[in-house]
Amino acid sequence: MIILGIDPGFAITGYGVIKYEKNKLQLLEYGVVSTKKEMPFTQRLMAIDEKIRELCDIYKPDCCAIEELFFNNNAKTAIAAAQGRGIAVGAVASLKIPVYEYTPLQVKQAVVGYGRAEKKQIQQMVKMILHMEDIPRPDDAADAIAIAICHSQWLLTAKPI
Amino acid sequence: MIILGIDPGFAITGYGVIKYEKNKLQLLEYGVVSTKKEMPFTQRLMAIDEKIRELCDIYKPDCCAIEELFFNNNAKTAIAAAQGRGIAVGAVASLKIPVYEYTPLQVKQAVVGYGRAEKKQIQQMVKMILHMEDIPRPDDAADAIAIAICHSQWLLTAKPI
Repeated sequence: MIILGIDPGFAITGYGVIKYEKNKLQLLEYGVVSTKKEMPFTQRLMAIDEKIRELCDIYKPDCCAIEELFFNNNAKTAIAAAQGRGIAVGAVASLKIPVYEYTPLQVKQAVVGYGRAEKKQIQQMVKMILHMEDIPRPDDAADAIAIAICHSQWLLTAKPI
Repeated sequence: MIILGIDPGFAITGYGVIKYEKNKLQLLEYGVVSTKKEMPFTQRLMAIDEKIRELCDIYKPDCCAIEELFFNNNAKTAIAAAQGRGIAVGAVASLKIPVYEYTPLQVKQAVVGYGRAEKKQIQQMVKMILHMEDIPRPDDAADAIAIAICHSQWLLTAKPI
């Protein structure tokens, strides 16, 4: 089973593709879609759409796991991130790939074992679980991989959104 | 010139299609994409995507005008509405149709003449400008038409997002 994990955002959207087979996890690809401030809004949205579709085309994921968005202190950033998330979910959903969502708490619990884990602990666990030589960078890519790992632990009970 | 106006949202997305020619405005279609709470999140997003694409397919709009989103008191609603807006903008942008955005203040100024106008005043003006027999309903459709009218007044100076 191939799982596409997405850490939603606007300027930066993280992604991680993992293979889950016989209780083993294997990392296939990870990275970020990063767009610059100078780019028009619509082109920045399209960059997210195109990368997600490209990943789905290459890896044919069976499912997608994406983090829930919560309000932060910056209203403008939250509205932009939510629009980016809408595009990402829409790209996957239009390809009939089921989408699952998890809260940051659920991701931390699944990967580290407790919900108040720090970012560095998650990254260390992602590195260990996937036998990577280094911590995956940037943070958004590591988060996306963590979300995919989280979903691999909830396969039997999770319901698509 | 055909203008597609969109009042972005999640549960309800308003739309209005107007024709602007020789300084005259004509209403071609208006309505809302409305989805029920019971529907899965992804299907609700897809309903917006499909309707916008259908409208673009039928009317071949030259441009699209959409309202800017602002934070309201309900964080959950704002996050959902922003995701719906992302899908709507993405659908139009993927068809290479330029998108313009306006604040509620700009829409009120353009349609009624001053930025503090009440909802009913906008609706009355939309009815008058487009020679409608009744006020367009529901509110979200009327708002979408107002946004399209607003854009018709800014054609020469507006820059796409």
